[in-house]
This record gives sequence, structure tokens and C-alpha cells, in this order.
Amino acid sequence: MPNVSHRSQTVPLSPFRKLIPLADRAKRAGKHIYHLNIGQPDIKTHPQAVAKFRQLPWQILDYSPSNGIDSYREALCGYYRRFDVSLTADEIMVTTGGSEAILFFMLACLDPGDEIIIPEPFYANYNGYAHIADVRVVPITCKIEDGFSIPSAEAFARKITPRTKAIVITTPNNPTGACYSRDELDRLSAIVRKHDLFFCADEVYREFSYDHPLQSILQLPDLEKHAIVIDSVSKRYSATGARVGSLVSRNLEVRESVDRFAKLRLSPPGLGQRLSEIMLEDDGSYLQGVKEDYHQRRDTVYQRLSRMPGVYSYKPGGAFYCFARFPIHDSEDFCRWLLEDFEYEGATVMLSPGPGFYATPGLGYDECRIAYVLNSEDLERAMDCLEEALKVYPGVDAEAMASGKLQA
Amino acid sequence: MPNVSHRSQTVPLSPFRKLIPLADRAKRAGKHIYHLNIGQPDIKTHPQAVAKFRQLPWQILDYSPSNGIDSYREALCGYYRRFDVSLTADEIMVTTGGSEAILFFMLACLDPGDEIIIPEPFYANYNGYAHIADVRVVPITCKIEDGFSIPSAEAFARKITPRTKAIVITTPNNPTGACYSRDELDRLSAIVRKHDLFFCADEVYREFSYDHPLQSILQLPDLEKHAIVIDSVSKRYSATGARVGSLVSRNLEVRESVDRFAKLRLSPPGLGQRLSEIMLEDDGSYLQGVKEDYHQRRDTVYQRLSRMPGVYSYKPGGAFYCFARFPIHDSEDFCRWLLEDFEYEGATVMLSPGPGFYATPGLGYDECRIAYVLNSEDLERAMDCLEEALKVYPGVDAEAMASGKLQA
Repeated sequence: MPNVSHRSQTVPLSPFRKLIPLADRAKRAGKHIYHLNIGQPDIKTHPQAVAKFRQLPWQILDYSPSNGIDSYREALCGYYRRFDVSLTADEIMVTTGGSEAILFFMLACLDPGDEIIIPEPFYANYNGYAHIADVRVVPITCKIEDGFSIPSAEAFARKITPRTKAIVITTPNNPTGACYSRDELDRLSAIVRKHDLFFCADEVYREFSYDHPLQSILQLPDLEKHAIVIDSVSKRYSATGARVGSLVSRNLEVRESVDRFAKLRLSPPGLGQRLSEIMLEDDGSYLQGVKEDYHQRRDTVYQRLSRMPGVYSYKPGGAFYCFARFPIHDSEDFCRWLLEDFEYEGATVMLSPGPGFYATPGLGYDECRIAYVLNSEDLERAMDCLEEALKVYPGVDAEAMASGKLQA
Repeated sequence: MPNVSHRSQTVPLSPFRKLIPLADRAKRAGKHIYHLNIGQPDIKTHPQAVAKFRQLPWQILDYSPSNGIDSYREALCGYYRRFDVSLTADEIMVTTGGSEAILFFMLACLDPGDEIIIPEPFYANYNGYAHIADVRVVPITCKIEDGFSIPSAEAFARKITPRTKAIVITTPNNPTGACYSRDELDRLSAIVRKHDLFFCADEVYREFSYDHPLQSILQLPDLEKHAIVIDSVSKRYSATGARVGSLVSRNLEVRESVDRFAKLRLSPPGLGQRLSEIMLEDDGSYLQGVKEDYHQRRDTVYQRLSRMPGVYSYKPGGAFYCFARFPIHDSEDFCRWLLEDFEYEGATVMLSPGPGFYATPGLGYDECRIAYVLNSEDLERAMDCLEEALKVYPGVDAEAMASGKLQA
């Protein structure tokens, strides 16, 4: 029998992948699972846009241009103008979800052996794409006590080598919910200009910034050659299955390089693009409503966590994630135990264990990511489960539990 | 300014990419272009399916499972049963077009430096995916005089090295239209079993076989561990923009390896999958109609080419391509000249030059690919252009023109 590739055996997996069979088994046994492990919201895709999409006249579902439907890219220019970012349609390349934009960025800008610096904890799938592109991920550790803010310029300088080609950030952040301030972005901007690096910002949660106006690296001056933005309609319009994202760059060489890979795969999805174009016609009221909904959920989760003995969470400013510290030694075991050995009123909660979001070994064992993708009522029930679980989990860290709480 | 990657500068490009600006210029100058260069048919996407798709009730366009919507994969089992191929839904993994299935096959089965043997001329984008996967393409040359049939087992044996991991074929073939016979497939089957190779067949044109019943490597015995099929709805249902393909394998290890890459990109397109599931409900009459249409176009192109002095074409048995030999020395120059310097009754024709379909340098300079994706009337006008062009093209090979024709 021919052997599969070695590289396929070493693809880094999702932090909660090992838990899925346990969750399935628990469900079969009749336990209800509150899924706070995944980024699949329960919010309806823009209903008016969906209705209009159904009426669209089309007869041939043909390839779109490899960089996306022209009118959709024009409409995206209008979207960016809403927050004072001026782009031409050429500067926007439509991709098959934000995921493909990440892969295209790595292939177009990095050669095998090149390095990217990413503040950790970070979206775990960057590891997988770096694996495909044979690129080395260099983590720089952010701390919960600092609200997962961007480390100092000196800390970055220590990570830079002749192979460093880019700094990659996610803002608002997955998994921490941190929204980087203008000051933090300016600091990173100075570093990438000084060391002549690409500055790739994954801004797919851009709209979900609860305490401050949204920031985009596209608003920063003097980054025309450096800035590459990953974007997506998935979270914004609760349309994760559309598989429509984009890669934005004002650097023509970058776009030409991306275009070679884009042409290879012929076209991003046609139906998703048409739906996305219609969703962009929204006057802002849908997005406003969704944002308010997440804002409320954020407050629910944060307040509940704040009241749990031994649990520490900083208040996440955006996205729909909270990355909290628990009074435990091994979050992988805790998440497993929640599914296998615990239930409260017939239910339990599924979280993502922290270590999978770190590249530095040994970190995240007292942390879990909570995705607040459920409605507030379900979220309250899920928090009930979590609170009860911490009272009876055998692996609880009594010292951490007793030491009281740090508060943000 | 940071530099883009070296690898992006060496992505092999489409055979006709350099011609696109010339075609655009000709159009702006008012010349009509018959596009026989691309695989974008003018046939309507299944109209009843589209109508039903519009009525589908859905509220959240969520991620599908990474291997595709369960009910769609179940429906695909029924599709394969129509030609006596028995599969379970687990053995079918839905991908973002056939393109992604090609990439997943290479990443899952091959390591950097591994080799795949592909009969040439072949679909040029295999080069691009091999470039991303750092896999070496080893061509084995097929000849037009043999109807581009599969070379002998001895010819394959000479290409096999310790790094050979797979044989890749396209049947019906792009760009030649060759449909490999059961005998040819059996011969390849013996080779892959003897040398313990994967046998990857790109069968996206499966339904378009005009002279013989369709063949799939999934019908061959004893290939459970070896056979990997690339499939797609793009051509079959004239829905290239759906971006819905699949990778089929009965080898669990292969599927588990593919699944690691599939999970990384989260989900194939949701709307395309839903449309595809509905298109599968067709009782066969749509496909029959499309096939008859292409059959007639095939006959038109073949008959017209056969009557042109100095032109040689074997009769393509399937897909919607014809790969013909012309009385010319340089098909790249000929295709350029057609766009820039020639017109007949206000129009000209755009073809794909042969060399881009070969990995062996120097081949294909007297050949072009014709995609018969236009209706018969337009095809006749396009053939008029081609016939007139050959009468006046300055680079015509007088000797080839005079030597009369080989006929298949």
C-alpha cells in the first residue's frame, strides 16, 4: 500500500479536535452540550439580503474573475470608505474565505524557511498554513495580566532575525478578544518599517469592537508597501458558509504575486460572492444589531466569569471570544472531563483548551477560550455549568482557587 | 520595501495568460473574439435545479462539515451507483472545486521532492499545484498520431524512480479529449499495483464521453488503496462558479490525511453544495442534453478541422477539447498573431498554444487546444476565421501545408 505523506501526519490540528469524539459520545448519551468551542454563531445571516439573493436572476453560474466579481470589489471599496479607508477595487482580491487569504499571503510573501512573528496566543490555523507553506512561526507571548496587549518594541526586536519577513496580528483578536489600540498599531508600524517587513493583519472581526472605535492597519500612514489585510464576510454577516474573504494590499507586487496563486484555483465561489455583494447594501442596521447582540453576550460572559472563584479574565474588547484563566493545572484534561465526567442539569459545556493557541510549549494549561456564539439565555446556562464544574472538578488548583482574583 | 517570495515568481502560468491583454486590446478596437481558449461553457446551469435552489429555506449560512454536507455526500453515492460504482458517503470528501482536490491530493500523498508521472500534454494547472506542494512532475509524452493514447508499460517503467509516488491522469482528457479505454486503465492499474503507487484520476469530464461508455478508475478491481478520484460539478452541470468538487478514495489513511488539510480551511462553499445536491436529483435528462450538445460541437470542430489543408486532428472522444496540429512552427506566435494582426469579417479566434500543456521543452509548437464551449453557430464562424487565418498567416509551414494530412 502506498504511504501517505509525512507532512500530512504533522499538520497542526485544531485545539479542540481531540474533544469532538468525546462530545459526540456525550450527545449520544443524552447530555446537552453548550458549544462554546467554535466560531459558528447562532445569529441569522442578513435576512433581507438572503431574500434578495433568492430573487437574483442568473442562468449560468460561471467562473468569476480570479480576483473576484468586479462589482463586488467596487462595493467593498464603499464598505472600507465607511471607516475612512480609501481603496481601489484593484487593491482588493476576493478569496475563498479568510483562510485562503492567509494561505495566499504566506505563499506570495514568504519562502520556505522564512519566519513570521505572531503574538501568542493566536488563531491556531495559522500553524497549519505555515506548515503547508513551510514557514516558521515565531511566537511572542502576550499576557493575560496585560490584557493580552502587544509586547514592547524591544521584545519584538529580540525576535527579529535575517529570515523574519512579516509580523502577523489578529485584531480584534481570536482567541483573546483583544482590540489593539492605535498606539499599539503605530508601534508595530514603526517596527515593520524599520526592519522592512510585511505587516499582515487579520481583521475578520473588525466590526466587533465594543469599547473603542474600530481600528484597521489600512488607516495607518506610510504602510502602503507593508500592510496586508485579511478580511472575510463570515463573522461580520454570520455567513461562515459563504466562503468569501479577501486579501487587501496597496502593494502591486504583492497583488501580482497573490494573483498567480489566485489564477491557479480559477475563481472564488460565485454564489457566496453574489450574496456578499447584496449584504454590503446594508445601511449598517444589521451590523449594528449584531454588534449589540455580541456586546451583551460579552458582558454576560465577563460578568459571570468575574464572579467565579479563582477565575481570571480580562474584559475582551472585541471579536466574540474570551480567553480566561482557570484555577486548574491542565486545561486539556479539564475540557475532556467536562465532556466525559461532568453534567449539570443534563448539560455540560465544551471549551477550547488554551495550549493549542500557543506556539511556546507549556503555556495555556490554565487557560481556555470561550466563544460566546450562543444567545444570552444559553450563555447563562453554559456559565451555570462552568461554575458548577469548577466546584467539583478533581483537578482544581486549590491554591489558585484560594488566592483570590486578579481583576482587570 | 519588503520583497515578495521567490516561489511566487516561478508559479507556472496558464498557457494563454500572456494572450489576455492582447485579446482585451483587440476587443477594445472593436474586433469580436471567439473564445475557444477557456473551459467556460455557454450552457445554462441546470434551470430546474436553479429554480429549486432559489426556494430553499435557510436562515444561517453556516460552516458545513469540513468534508462536506452529509446529505450531499449521500446523494453523491447515488450518482456513482448509476455507473456501478459503490461508495459510502465517508469515501467522498467535498472540496472547493476540483482544484482544491488536486492540491489536497498532492499535500496528503506526496512530500517535497516526490515525483508524479503525468501523460503529456496535460492540464497546465497541475504544474502550479505541484509547484506549491514542491512535487516534481515527470511527463510521459503521448502522441497525436496515436490519438494521445496511454504509452506502453515499458515507457512508464523507464520513468519510475525511488521518488515516484503516483501516476496522475485526466480522463476524458484536458487538453486532448482522449478517453482512456478499459484496456489502458487496466494497464495503468497493473503498473501502480506493481510499484505501489497512488493512481490519481481527474475525472471531471466523466459524463462527456461520446463514442464509448464512460470509464472510471473506481470501476477497476484491486485499487482500493491506490485509486484517488478528482471530481467536480463545474463542467458536468455547467456550474463552474459553484466551486464544488470532491476527492474520492477508499483508502482510509488517504482520507484521514486529506481531512487534516480540509479541517484547516474549515468548510467547502455552502451555497454551492446546496445547489449541487439539488442538481443531483436530475433524472439524467439534463446531462443527456448537455452531452448531446457537446457531441454535436465535437463533430462540428472535428469535421471543420479535417477539411483544413495541413491541419491534423485525431477525433477527440470526450471532454470539450480538441488538440490539433497546425501547419505552423510556433503556436504561441500564431495565437498572438490571431489576436493582433488578423481578422475575418470583424472577428478572430482565441486558442491556447500547445507548449504550455507540455512539461518537456520544445513540444507543442505546432499544436493548439480548441475548447468547443460555444454554440454550433458560433463554432462555425470561429472555424471560418481559423480556416481563413491559415491561408494568410505569414508563419505558415509550407512543407507541412503541402504534405497533405494524416487522418485518424
